Amino acid sequence: MCAGSLVAVDWGSSSLRGARLAADGQVLEERSFARGILRVAEGEFSAVFESCFGDWMQGAGALCLMSGMVGSKQGWTEAPYCACPSGFEEVAARLAWVVPGRIAIVPGLVCEHEGIPDVMRGEETQTFGALKLLGMQDALLVHPGTHSKWVQVRAGCIQSFATFMTGEFFALLRQHSILSRTLPASDGDFDSDAFAQGVMLALRGKSLLHTAFGTRTLSLFDRLSAAALPSYLSGLVIGEELRAQTLPSDAKLVVVGSETLTQRYQDALALQGIPAQCIGSQATWAGLWAIAQTIAPGSLSTA
Amino acid sequence: MCAGSLVAVDWGSSSLRGARLAADGQVLEERSFARGILRVAEGEFSAVFESCFGDWMQGAGALCLMSGMVGSKQGWTEAPYCACPSGFEEVAARLAWVVPGRIAIVPGLVCEHEGIPDVMRGEETQTFGALKLLGMQDALLVHPGTHSKWVQVRAGCIQSFATFMTGEFFALLRQHSILSRTLPASDGDFDSDAFAQGVMLALRGKSLLHTAFGTRTLSLFDRLSAAALPSYLSGLVIGEELRAQTLPSDAKLVVVGSETLTQRYQDALALQGIPAQCIGSQATWAGLWAIAQTIAPGSLSTA
Repeated sequence: MCAGSLVAVDWGSSSLRGARLAADGQVLEERSFARGILRVAEGEFSAVFESCFGDWMQGAGALCLMSGMVGSKQGWTEAPYCACPSGFEEVAARLAWVVPGRIAIVPGLVCEHEGIPDVMRGEETQTFGALKLLGMQDALLVHPGTHSKWVQVRAGCIQSFATFMTGEFFALLRQHSILSRTLPASDGDFDSDAFAQGVMLALRGKSLLHTAFGTRTLSLFDRLSAAALPSYLSGLVIGEELRAQTLPSDAKLVVVGSETLTQRYQDALALQGIPAQCIGSQATWAGLWAIAQTIAPGSLSTA
Repeated sequence: MCAGSLVAVDWGSSSLRGARLAADGQVLEERSFARGILRVAEGEFSAVFESCFGDWMQGAGALCLMSGMVGSKQGWTEAPYCACPSGFEEVAARLAWVVPGRIAIVPGLVCEHEGIPDVMRGEETQTFGALKLLGMQDALLVHPGTHSKWVQVRAGCIQSFATFMTGEFFALLRQHSILSRTLPASDGDFDSDAFAQGVMLALRGKSLLHTAFGTRTLSLFDRLSAAALPSYLSGLVIGEELRAQTLPSDAKLVVVGSETLTQRYQDALALQGIPAQCIGSQATWAGLWAIAQTIAPGSLSTA
């Protein structure tokens, strides 16, 4: 790899984050911007990138690797999906170069179950980074979020994964459904009892189509305070996501994401007696750094 | 009952429908208005009623019975819920009179499972009407809609029921989720193959949190045409509702509602090998008429 620093960028639908890494992978500086790809017009990606990270790219031999929705059709340049199973070497070998030798996008992954494709962009990089940081080769990883991803890894390769629209369902119910009239305007303090109550009900196997309505009736009949309802609803959707998994009793579960959200999943998994370790955003930087190590310095001189 | 005609009114959240019935229950005339209770300001129910049905109420001894959300806190007058089990005699004995002897609201029902209340307003009347029309005393009824109700009846009494937010989930996903970018602006023609495909996938037990995302990827990878996606998504949510039921093999299933929707449920149930009969909006009028028969003429003279 180039001797200079790596600019690691996580460019998703709603946010743009970057880090400048030292040659040994250490994070020197981080930045974040409310310029997710949905807020960047076609043809403006280069200018947005320059304004956000241009100063970091000034040195000779500076390299930038990006992951996330920036590689989608709606992004800067489409990076065609890699098929599962894929290890990080396969992904690294199929970078989509935006500026040859300087700026590249890590491709997302595609897999298929029962004739239905599933896709992700960004979580593959976080997965590889988390495995590096934790020194693991086999694991089941959860990336909670708007579209949660459950990623199965064996021998360092992503074998398969599945998407759950958990965060989006919560937001839809919270903001646009009849429940929005019952729930308070702001989520307020997290209520761990109400959350656990929601998780446990969902784990008993009732459909979310039914349990979600209970959020309204529990409030109508004063069984739950309005302030507790967002936590209860969060428990219902996360519990439904957990119910849908087939978890081996010896599963090594890793939850990747922000502290608030990973803590919530760790709590919900604990209600099932399943231990899980959490890892934060440094997984993205570690993944991009690991991919950068596979790029031979010679390959960059073609730029 | 009064010798005059009955004005039967189904006043729900989004629509207001009425029928003038002869003394023998025959429907003489029907009207409908886009004046659901959500579009009626507090204090204006009387005026809206008068403008829509005032001419039907002019005769001496005219009686109006109403069912639906008009009896909720946000309605004309709150009609406190009857607890399950309740037969139509119990419901008839607890009418909430708006204009004594002339205009009354049929109360809704409440039941409870595992400490969580469930409620309905209007479907109890449709249930009693459907049973009368079909000559049944024991049945499992489905009232598909924004909030589908599954109603268990034994010996003419509603024993329990459960709500499923199926129609609302469809609308949320259709209009407000990431799927709205993939789905065509209009639902277009119903695609029975795509619908069946969605139902069958849901019946295999996958969570809607996961299967809904497939609506997007099937389109991304050109496995389903955009025109087929609304039918596929409809199949996913209705299939999820059916999956959540415990249906005895000899269940006498009755689907109550509009022809389009009951047909869809009948099709989905047929994929499980479960026969069902359908009944339309006349169930409401039959239910209100049956309740009216229990009102002794003497009781009205107190008005």
